[in-house]
Amino acid sequence: MGLIGKVVVAQGGGPTIVINQSLVGVVLESRKSTQITSVYGAIKGVEGILNEDFIDLTMETSHNLEQVGLTPSSALLSTRDKPDERYCQELFRVLKAHDIRYFFYIGGNDSADTVRIVNDNANKAHYNLRTIHIPKTIDNDVVLNDHTPGYGSAARFVAQAFSGANLDNRSLPGVYIIVVMGRNAGFLTAASSLAQKFSDDGPHLIYLPERTFRIDDFLKEVKEVYDRYGRCLVAVSEGIRDEQHRLIITKLVDKIGRDAHGNLELTSNNFLLGDYLASIVKKNLNIKRVRSDTLGYFQRSFNGCVSDVDQHEAREVGEKAAQFAIRQNLDGSVVIERSGYYSVEYHLKPLADVAGKTRVMPDHFINPAGNNVTDTFKFYLRPLIGSGFPSAYRLQAPRVPKILESE
Amino acid sequence: MGLIGKVVVAQGGGPTIVINQSLVGVVLESRKSTQITSVYGAIKGVEGILNEDFIDLTMETSHNLEQVGLTPSSALLSTRDKPDERYCQELFRVLKAHDIRYFFYIGGNDSADTVRIVNDNANKAHYNLRTIHIPKTIDNDVVLNDHTPGYGSAARFVAQAFSGANLDNRSLPGVYIIVVMGRNAGFLTAASSLAQKFSDDGPHLIYLPERTFRIDDFLKEVKEVYDRYGRCLVAVSEGIRDEQHRLIITKLVDKIGRDAHGNLELTSNNFLLGDYLASIVKKNLNIKRVRSDTLGYFQRSFNGCVSDVDQHEAREVGEKAAQFAIRQNLDGSVVIERSGYYSVEYHLKPLADVAGKTRVMPDHFINPAGNNVTDTFKFYLRPLIGSGFPSAYRLQAPRVPKILESE
Repeated sequence: MGLIGKVVVAQGGGPTIVINQSLVGVVLESRKSTQITSVYGAIKGVEGILNEDFIDLTMETSHNLEQVGLTPSSALLSTRDKPDERYCQELFRVLKAHDIRYFFYIGGNDSADTVRIVNDNANKAHYNLRTIHIPKTIDNDVVLNDHTPGYGSAARFVAQAFSGANLDNRSLPGVYIIVVMGRNAGFLTAASSLAQKFSDDGPHLIYLPERTFRIDDFLKEVKEVYDRYGRCLVAVSEGIRDEQHRLIITKLVDKIGRDAHGNLELTSNNFLLGDYLASIVKKNLNIKRVRSDTLGYFQRSFNGCVSDVDQHEAREVGEKAAQFAIRQNLDGSVVIERSGYYSVEYHLKPLADVAGKTRVMPDHFINPAGNNVTDTFKFYLRPLIGSGFPSAYRLQAPRVPKILESE
Repeated sequence: MGLIGKVVVAQGGGPTIVINQSLVGVVLESRKSTQITSVYGAIKGVEGILNEDFIDLTMETSHNLEQVGLTPSSALLSTRDKPDERYCQELFRVLKAHDIRYFFYIGGNDSADTVRIVNDNANKAHYNLRTIHIPKTIDNDVVLNDHTPGYGSAARFVAQAFSGANLDNRSLPGVYIIVVMGRNAGFLTAASSLAQKFSDDGPHLIYLPERTFRIDDFLKEVKEVYDRYGRCLVAVSEGIRDEQHRLIITKLVDKIGRDAHGNLELTSNNFLLGDYLASIVKKNLNIKRVRSDTLGYFQRSFNGCVSDVDQHEAREVGEKAAQFAIRQNLDGSVVIERSGYYSVEYHLKPLADVAGKTRVMPDHFINPAGNNVTDTFKFYLRPLIGSGFPSAYRLQAPRVPKILESE
């Protein structure tokens, strides 16, 4: 029999579609154990712990928990606070006062660092506290994981959006540029590739943060595609950078900011990227029908587009976290490893190995020209977006011979 | 027994999620009749007729037709051509040469005008030609219809996007402004209101083209909401206008266009609206976390978000069109009328009564303050978005008493 005491669970950082599955996994698994005297949820992540904003999840009905599990975004609300040493000391003080013996934090790689520091504090004070980091992120950039909960559903949304955009672009041809979030890693933008069904389908070009973006190459490549197909669908990550490794977005903001005499203080820059690229295509390639859209935050919040595989795994990392801590008395970060095609295993890694680190798209996922993805990537991604992914069908009927001369 | 001859069906204007259901309805119903010698599909709308770009849909398998029916965007591709008298004379000439006796055009209100003029040409030439306009539009602005095919699914997408955005805004509070397409009618923007589940849910403010937009009122209203809830989600139509009835968007483009010394030629203006509103909120209300997103074209193309009611009705207007023309020897525009809650009937109206006219949100759908919609509107809309609309659930657990003094 392990530590007797309370559980605190919290959610930090940007929400995902399946983040509540992890919460539910922790809560239901914890409540099974007689060691656990109460299960607290902290409102607004670590801010909630700081302010003692707890709700007693031991008093939450299992039915409602399941419904919440299916609801996107952090049911316990969230925070963007990035605790330093002093902050973590305060967190520990509150946890100790409430007789908390198990701390579960669902978040990205910086959350892992928070958990690590709180764990250090507990060790120094000789206070028995089990601390587990539970991964989540739509960017898929947490190290040691084959992929992270939240990515599969966000990728599915991006893929469905591009599937539709490809059809739209085919029915009213032109150049259509769509910007996808992801400042450092291109996994989400790359997910657009699942829209490529027929050989002439888009996105015809995919630009990722992992490759230097050159305007001249971009224009040349768009022209090639447009000349061949009479249309061009482009997926662009907001994180594309130039030769000096500077974000294209920030260069644009400076230009607009100065030129507009401070009239327009831009709050979100990514839309501007799409429009900028559209305008240079229009000007340089003399193509009339050019437009751009930006996917914005919808892939992390859209209610009604979810990967069942992602949902399932998000639930499991929550359950495993509780099992590792309560039954095996361990600390660490839960990681997902791929064990087959397609199957996964859950392991626990040291918090320090995960904390504050990020990963990016490996070379074998990107084509040599640096403007698309490889089949290897699509093979990697396909199981993650789950079942029931809609396809797109075309008419197959034969042509009718013309009988009049053309005018 | 009516006219013996061929059918031509085409799709015009912006695509919708369910536009192929109407195509399939026409084709399958036409093929049942022994009067119909062939069913042609014109590629790229009226352009296809002009260029004799026909495919023989009598040779399309019913199974593939059903799959295409489920695929968004115009399977026959589309056109933005708006035919004048001379163009329509040419269209008639081609139709006559191919012994076409039935012309079905799936499109918005300007498509109805095309059909009307072609019909006139046929009458003048004493050539027996049945012409039917089949409605479609995501904006819901075709007159004489309770609603039009394409709207229900687009509205569902908007509602699901806002449901998620509301959850996102609740978990990481701030001011979140989302721009929705719709230059003249606010039906699509208004659909965001279905995200309002709990009394503090957003969108807290909805700004439509049907009401004058005043910056001062906007800032005052955002502040009121933010002060009350600590957050604010705003739905804004891209078609909002000032007191002089001028589109806010165009005023911004002028400002940017001139100030940026022509460096940036803006191709799509709607994103700029969101960012402009976000910047004035930031500056005037001194709120730090303010962001904006624009839904863009996704609500008309997204593959995997559809209203079954919309799908069903889109199929039926296609079938009815074929029945009206082939079995009853009539010309006109198919309209949908609401006959119960919830049921519809299909009727045929004169082409001239529909052609070139638009409708907007009636007063009883908009609240007196002009910044939200009424329950009457939500009641009107709810059946159109179909079954299986995802809800959003909240935790209900009780608060835990604090035991430390606050810092």
